Amino acid sequence: MRGDISINAERLLGEIEHISQFSDVPAPAVTRILYTPADMAARHYLKQLADAAGLPWREDALGNWFVRLQGTEPDLPAVATGSHIDAIPYAGKYDGVVGVLGGLEALRAIREAGVTPRRSLELIMFTAEEPTRFGVGCLGSRGMAGLMPWDAMRALQDANGVSLEQARADAGYTGELESVELSRDAYAYFVELHIEQGPFLEAADREIGIVTDIVASTTVRVTLTGEGGHAGTVPMPERNDALAAAAELVLLAEKAAGFRSRGLAVATVGMLDVHPGASNSIPSRVELTLDVRAREMRVRDAMLEEVHTGLKALARSRRIRHEWQVLNHDPACRSDPRILTAIARSAEALGHAHLSLVSRAYHDTVFMARHFPAAMIFIPCHEGYSHRPEEFAAPEHIVAGTETLTSTLVELAAL
Amino acid sequence: MRGDISINAERLLGEIEHISQFSDVPAPAVTRILYTPADMAARHYLKQLADAAGLPWREDALGNWFVRLQGTEPDLPAVATGSHIDAIPYAGKYDGVVGVLGGLEALRAIREAGVTPRRSLELIMFTAEEPTRFGVGCLGSRGMAGLMPWDAMRALQDANGVSLEQARADAGYTGELESVELSRDAYAYFVELHIEQGPFLEAADREIGIVTDIVASTTVRVTLTGEGGHAGTVPMPERNDALAAAAELVLLAEKAAGFRSRGLAVATVGMLDVHPGASNSIPSRVELTLDVRAREMRVRDAMLEEVHTGLKALARSRRIRHEWQVLNHDPACRSDPRILTAIARSAEALGHAHLSLVSRAYHDTVFMARHFPAAMIFIPCHEGYSHRPEEFAAPEHIVAGTETLTSTLVELAAL
Repeated sequence: MRGDISINAERLLGEIEHISQFSDVPAPAVTRILYTPADMAARHYLKQLADAAGLPWREDALGNWFVRLQGTEPDLPAVATGSHIDAIPYAGKYDGVVGVLGGLEALRAIREAGVTPRRSLELIMFTAEEPTRFGVGCLGSRGMAGLMPWDAMRALQDANGVSLEQARADAGYTGELESVELSRDAYAYFVELHIEQGPFLEAADREIGIVTDIVASTTVRVTLTGEGGHAGTVPMPERNDALAAAAELVLLAEKAAGFRSRGLAVATVGMLDVHPGASNSIPSRVELTLDVRAREMRVRDAMLEEVHTGLKALARSRRIRHEWQVLNHDPACRSDPRILTAIARSAEALGHAHLSLVSRAYHDTVFMARHFPAAMIFIPCHEGYSHRPEEFAAPEHIVAGTETLTSTLVELAAL
Repeated sequence: MRGDISINAERLLGEIEHISQFSDVPAPAVTRILYTPADMAARHYLKQLADAAGLPWREDALGNWFVRLQGTEPDLPAVATGSHIDAIPYAGKYDGVVGVLGGLEALRAIREAGVTPRRSLELIMFTAEEPTRFGVGCLGSRGMAGLMPWDAMRALQDANGVSLEQARADAGYTGELESVELSRDAYAYFVELHIEQGPFLEAADREIGIVTDIVASTTVRVTLTGEGGHAGTVPMPERNDALAAAAELVLLAEKAAGFRSRGLAVATVGMLDVHPGASNSIPSRVELTLDVRAREMRVRDAMLEEVHTGLKALARSRRIRHEWQVLNHDPACRSDPRILTAIARSAEALGHAHLSLVSRAYHDTVFMARHFPAAMIFIPCHEGYSHRPEEFAAPEHIVAGTETLTSTLVELAAL
């Protein structure tokens, strides 16, 4: 690494293992949902690590967590890094966590080397990158960029009818939501370290991915309402089965994306709840989520339009009422070239082979990029597995990624 | 009614209203699931009513409940009536309840008139006619007829992994399961009063339905296992999405039944659970229930075969593993002609217009009919609504049904 800065690999890898125990399900699976006891315990552990390193931290009204390493010119916009620690049900150990603990390790390594950068450095742990609890992904970074109307955020409720307002208050975060938004001069640069969640780096045998673009992403909640009734007594021609309508929609979405899959287009129905949910009862209502992504915004928009049009037609022919609620409809993201250059130079200086690629998953970087020059560093993940217990990032890749991040932060802090 | 027997309509209708409050959801919906506090409270209420009427009762090892009115020849096989009080999620007030409280009213009215029939009369409240908790319908009557292997019954578990053995012990039912089976000379006749759960009596403006047949019914649990992964990063051609496979199955089943709907064939996927169930995660596993019914057993069997064959083909082409677990596969039921005659004569004597019809829902009568001559009395239900909060049986029809049941029991008890 540059100068005498060197990361403590054993410490970092041990912490990644340790934090995985804060989970609602047995290892190797991880479930860590916003403001649950598992999430709060993991946050507490991070605070202990920052305290032990002598790095001051603060939290905002959503529980976004900021750790600071003061620079020689503390009034200049800082350089930030960060990621998330929440995990969808039955996910893995590395998604998000590598960027949070890797970022913390970067700050510690710089401090322990006695190096004081010109710009201050900040590590951010973003609240709820995953949409699990409130249906909206990147809640924390979306708030920092002021990209969600505050009243809409206040109106969010989880599946049990608990509001975000109540949930954050219960977790101890009581400030005004509006205070979460960051001014545009808070940071000079933002860079996020993350596992690839795809197969390309492993297949190309490269240690570092330099993310040039992030795909455009939309999530829609669809509610289909038909007529219930006894599964034995209502003749087939008289039914308005909400699940049969949902089944058509699932296949429509699959087809819309499959047709465009060369453009990195994907469509997924990941949640589907049936009401009343009894074996001898005709489904009267189905709620489902539709997740649509593509590299080009116009491709994503065309897929959405195709599925929405198909839904209207099938709802009409099946006499089903439908709601189409867009939960998020996010832009594609283009990385800042100065950061891309800093990452590439750092990887080369460290002897880590790199590759430029597109992120097919969305990240807090999408929202940070609305306010700040931003980019991402990827490391390989085995077989591209992610959002499942088999997710795996090799120790040497975690170390390579953290070294590259550390060097990039130092370089950007000098600019 | 015959002689000086007259039912107390106000008492009966009040009790039907009262028992609906024992529910896990707000009125008018009723959710009352086996051995839950709501179920146990409703059972306690019934026992209070029997005690107040001075009618002795007993319970078996599954919680089937028997109330007895002693005849002048108590050693003769008795005449039994009965139904259930459990209710699927968000069901109505009348399904099952009318037959239990109507049967109790019949016994009370006969006793209050000072009439002692030749054969004893028994009212049975069957445990778990609905399959909600353990996936098997008519658990109590199935046990009485010895139609489920005892080891299979002992192996039943609910969705939370609680065994039937544990659940019944917790509810206070600790005897040997084998003791539930009834000897073939326990009853001379069995007749069940129930709402139609279909539209025909109302459309024909008749008060009494005389059930000549009950359709053949099968329930299958299907598990589909594919590959999970991040909804953004796995390209469409590489996916093995368990929900997309399930969607095809739902539409296959709908088509198989729709094609045969003149034969009263129906197919319903009523439960469908998606794992892991996150908006940005590809479904790795889906569990669903398939309910198939037809008047003719061979039609039902042909539908099952068609869906199963289709499932094998789509699982192969989508590289999805599948399990096909038959939860119940029950015969059609033909009513006993002596009981049909007694019902028709009773209805005519009481001035209630009647109609013969086929039951498209299955009932405890299907299983009682394996050991005893059996039949059913239906009353109209508004628009055929059932298994939903809008379920409604008019007071005058409940009274007409209970009068017809009372008279039928008296006539059968004299045979």
